[in-house]
Amino acid sequence: MRVRKRKGAEELLSENSQIVVAQPEEWKGKWQERFPKNQPIQIEIGMGKGQFITGMAKANPEINYIGIDMQVSVVSFALDKVLAEQLPNVQLLHVDGSALTNYFADGEVDQIYLNFSDPWPKKRHEKRRLTSKEFLSVDEQILRPQGEIHFKTDNRGLFEYSLASFSQYGMVLKKVWLDLHQSDEVATNIMTEYEEKFSAKGQPIFRVEASFPKKMR
Amino acid sequence: MRVRKRKGAEELLSENSQIVVAQPEEWKGKWQERFPKNQPIQIEIGMGKGQFITGMAKANPEINYIGIDMQVSVVSFALDKVLAEQLPNVQLLHVDGSALTNYFADGEVDQIYLNFSDPWPKKRHEKRRLTSKEFLSVDEQILRPQGEIHFKTDNRGLFEYSLASFSQYGMVLKKVWLDLHQSDEVATNIMTEYEEKFSAKGQPIFRVEASFPKKMR
Repeated sequence: MRVRKRKGAEELLSENSQIVVAQPEEWKGKWQERFPKNQPIQIEIGMGKGQFITGMAKANPEINYIGIDMQVSVVSFALDKVLAEQLPNVQLLHVDGSALTNYFADGEVDQIYLNFSDPWPKKRHEKRRLTSKEFLSVDEQILRPQGEIHFKTDNRGLFEYSLASFSQYGMVLKKVWLDLHQSDEVATNIMTEYEEKFSAKGQPIFRVEASFPKKMR
Repeated sequence: MRVRKRKGAEELLSENSQIVVAQPEEWKGKWQERFPKNQPIQIEIGMGKGQFITGMAKANPEINYIGIDMQVSVVSFALDKVLAEQLPNVQLLHVDGSALTNYFADGEVDQIYLNFSDPWPKKRHEKRRLTSKEFLSVDEQILRPQGEIHFKTDNRGLFEYSLASFSQYGMVLKKVWLDLHQSDEVATNIMTEYEEKFSAKGQPIFRVEASFPKKMR
């Protein structure tokens, strides 16, 4: 997600290090200590302005959430929401999604959300897609055995690619939606900012839940 | 595919037993003998009126095709096309797709096509879907190791179900199309009768190529 630069965003983040960790690598393997309750940790890679992660945190107090984005302005907008809602079960992480093994121990994460990730449509940019095997291998390492990725997008090309990429990596597709907003799932679906705008135009949202195989590679 | 009953269809089939085998179980393991050339055998389960199978046979003379349908009238319409085109590499089989191990030896088939199969949308009819695990287990048995199913449909619910069913069976999705007629594939795609009518309305056609795992279960 591209957003305009926000003045004072850096300062906002450092003033709120109880929510946005200042030295994330120091929390590797210790994320539970940053939450009042010891409960499963789910992360969103590329959280955008945080509507999804804060919506999930409100709806599921029995889960600890960590929202991740590499853009400082984006993280600052998500921070606004966490502060406004006073959510105890959300932490934010201002880092690059490709280096997650620096910030999470093996198996520390219960589940991963990818929402409306950058499609990188050119073949030569395939490795930048968050559903390419390069990223899946990072995800598998920080996830519990048989951990799941829940992915939604409006981009047909990225979804076609991702289904094949998951499958070829050895993941199992547990459930697939080719028009999420026309399904029963819509009742419990938490929308991202982008999804709200886009689905209002009537175009389909694709979704998949996929799990890593039992055996570690 | 439902079609009106055709008068004299039975007779037409028995008069052309060089194309529609009279006693299919006798050819189990010997299908190559019914073709002039020994070359890979690909089958279509539920061929309808035969536009796809005859189109494929014309386009790919290096493949032997067997079209299968359980309705006698449907087979008779496909027979019309095979006769009109004088295609040496097509045989027709008038049997029920669930009993294919009676008619094919283990590994005798190189590839399977499923086109616009009956969606059986009710949950209690799941076992009747040609992409349910019950049918996949039959398909795996008659296919060569790592053999493929190429499946297309306009039915969103059936496609969602089938992607998950293939994956959960252990198959690998090699490639997925969520709007076949908007893809490069359209240049070589052979349309079924139904596909021609349906895609003219602008609705998407879904397609997947999936392969069975290396190891036999």
